[in-house]
Amino acid sequence: MKVNLMHGAGGEVMGELLQTLTKFSHNNAGGIGLESLDDGAVIPINGTNIVFTTDSHVVRPLFFPGGDIGRISVCGTVNDLTMMGGRPVALSCGMVIEEGFDVADLARIVASMDEALGEAGACLVTGDTKVVERGSLDGIVINTAGIGVAKTVVRDNGLVPGDVIIVSGTLGDHGIAIMAHREGFDLGEQIHSDVAPLWGMMEGVLAAGTIHAMKDPTRGGFASAINEMAKKSRVQVRIEEDRIPLRRSVKSAAGMLGIDPLEVANEGKVVMGVPAADADAILAALHSHKYGKDAAVVGRVVAGSHVIMETAIGGERFIEPPMGDPVPRVC
Amino acid sequence: MKVNLMHGAGGEVMGELLQTLTKFSHNNAGGIGLESLDDGAVIPINGTNIVFTTDSHVVRPLFFPGGDIGRISVCGTVNDLTMMGGRPVALSCGMVIEEGFDVADLARIVASMDEALGEAGACLVTGDTKVVERGSLDGIVINTAGIGVAKTVVRDNGLVPGDVIIVSGTLGDHGIAIMAHREGFDLGEQIHSDVAPLWGMMEGVLAAGTIHAMKDPTRGGFASAINEMAKKSRVQVRIEEDRIPLRRSVKSAAGMLGIDPLEVANEGKVVMGVPAADADAILAALHSHKYGKDAAVVGRVVAGSHVIMETAIGGERFIEPPMGDPVPRVC
Ligand SMILES: Nc1ncnc2c1ncn2[C@@H]1O[C@H](COP(=O)(O)OP(=O)(O)OP(=O)(O)O)[C@@H](O)[C@H]1O
Ligand SMILES: Nc1ncnc2c1ncn2[C@@H]1O[C@H](COP(=O)(O)OP(=O)(O)OP(=O)(O)O)[C@@H](O)[C@H]1O
Ligand SMILES: [Mg+2]
Ligand SMILES: [Mg+2]
Ligand SMILES: [Mg+2]
Ligand SMILES: [Mg+2]
Ligand SMILES: [Mg+2]
Ligand SMILES: [Mg+2]
Repeated sequence: MKVNLMHGAGGEVMGELLQTLTKFSHNNAGGIGLESLDDGAVIPINGTNIVFTTDSHVVRPLFFPGGDIGRISVCGTVNDLTMMGGRPVALSCGMVIEEGFDVADLARIVASMDEALGEAGACLVTGDTKVVERGSLDGIVINTAGIGVAKTVVRDNGLVPGDVIIVSGTLGDHGIAIMAHREGFDLGEQIHSDVAPLWGMMEGVLAAGTIHAMKDPTRGGFASAINEMAKKSRVQVRIEEDRIPLRRSVKSAAGMLGIDPLEVANEGKVVMGVPAADADAILAALHSHKYGKDAAVVGRVVAGSHVIMETAIGGERFIEPPMGDPVPRVC
Repeated sequence: MKVNLMHGAGGEVMGELLQTLTKFSHNNAGGIGLESLDDGAVIPINGTNIVFTTDSHVVRPLFFPGGDIGRISVCGTVNDLTMMGGRPVALSCGMVIEEGFDVADLARIVASMDEALGEAGACLVTGDTKVVERGSLDGIVINTAGIGVAKTVVRDNGLVPGDVIIVSGTLGDHGIAIMAHREGFDLGEQIHSDVAPLWGMMEGVLAAGTIHAMKDPTRGGFASAINEMAKKSRVQVRIEEDRIPLRRSVKSAAGMLGIDPLEVANEGKVVMGVPAADADAILAALHSHKYGKDAAVVGRVVAGSHVIMETAIGGERFIEPPMGDPVPRVC
């Protein structure tokens, strides 16, 4: 069998490849390991919950409305640490660069990473650089890994019936921004990526109430994240279509592109399940932060399985787990 | 300015690019940070020295005599953790894969990683997978990052006059194995890469005596590592040519290739400076391990600067820090 693009698109097809890629017998260092397929791992070391995660970035173009590969490289890892309840502490950076790449662009990327690090309160402490011959890489790949410290670990599989589902803001912005920019759409309003480091916001949210489960809806978008959370938690999630925060510009661009905005990557959003009693406090904490001002309750958890959309016109349908993100090289 | 291949070759030219790539104001999380340019960073967390490092791997061919990209991906990071005095605990794996890559080869790579992890006593706990379009990457890039725990942190800048320089075995094996294999040399004796995880050996060595400084002589080889150690420690190192362990086959292949075996990568060796009083005990510990049986004292540290080779015929010359490793895509 050969690898195809959908094997890297964050959905069901990638899940199949992961069976090969996660076939490690040495897969758990004592806490939450590879077998959990959560946003990161947790390793208890001398009583401290060390969170550990990684993401590589191949986004094209390198500089896009609202961000660039540097910002996304830091935010991707910062957000996966955050999703485990971890305060981001230190990041690594592995760059693989094509011969001929512009050093001035590298400087811009580094500056952008540094800015995102400052916002996240983390430091870049170690790295590696490889250069490959012209033609053997399209520009640059940036990997970051990150270490965080979690007072309370949050999983992606802890939804329970009665929970309320909250999203921290408008969905689909990153993926649709990338596609609209590539296609040269002019919709009057420029669509910007939402790429942002979420620790600052989530620190307040974690203090405001209990979170039973959370995930950042990156590749495969909200549809992929909520399905994974529902399946791992063995519950049904019911989403109300007309409560989903969607920018009008994103909705119309998505329509023109024939893409479901719920299946494309977000790079500065959280999906969480919280006890109904804590929902107001958590929403208030979200609304108090610039990255959470459009946060909304979008659904609830019941017994059962699958994710159901209660449509605006009063019907019902499944929100299926996507085969993969429809936008290639989205992050 | 444009990036060229030497910018990724681990020598003096790469040092120039690193000025751009390490320009982070958020570069230290409290212990040893990016500014030290050591093999890894150290972050003290609740009284524990967490070591953190990363390496990306672009080696060609993917499978070579003595190893493969999977083994090298694990060993590269395990050995940088080890060089800081850290027991390897957990690794991450970021794979970027070209569309069309053979899934059976991925399975072989994963099995090889798993074997090396077992030997190192570490676990692979988190990862990421991206797939890019055919033609935008030559096969696969594998990044690993790693977390270790150090009882005693060892730096690369701690050489003091009076120290003895020890190498843990024959030099140049990996780089020359890769080149000889690419060139299709048949020297009677197959040259094998030395790629190996060194924690098992170094755990015993760390218990046997004091190590003032150590480094794994990867890209740029022994010449690069020893120059960096001498320069950072502000001392002179004197190496005796006829004490350097070199395989005869490596020496003759290097001669035919016109490459200095001291400037090519090793992937299973250590260069260290130890107090003269501890040298015997440390050598004994090295010799007791399969990866250290050719360990030898090769020189000594004196006041001054630079690295001097006392040649076999009684002369003296500098061992210059190489501009970069002469073997492209060596790791
Ligand atoms: N090459 C790999 N080796 C080991 N584990 C992997 C690999 N690729 C992915 N994983 C694991 O599979 C799970 C899903 O990975 P994925 O990258 O989709 O998560 P994510 O980082 O939360 O999402 P995204 O990459 O879209 O931001 C994670 O638990 C991850 O650790
Ligand atoms: N892109 C980068 N960003 C930040 N720091 C980097 C980057 N590339 C290298 N560094 C830092 O520069 C120093 C030298 O890196 P280098 O990769 O040569 O070390 P190494 O891993 O010991 O050697 P090798 O990669 O040959 O095994 C290290 O301290 C590393 O953290
Ligand atoms: Mg995630
Ligand atoms: Mg991620
Ligand atoms: Mg390196
Ligand atoms: Mg090193
Ligand atoms: Mg290294
Ligand atoms: Mg990922």
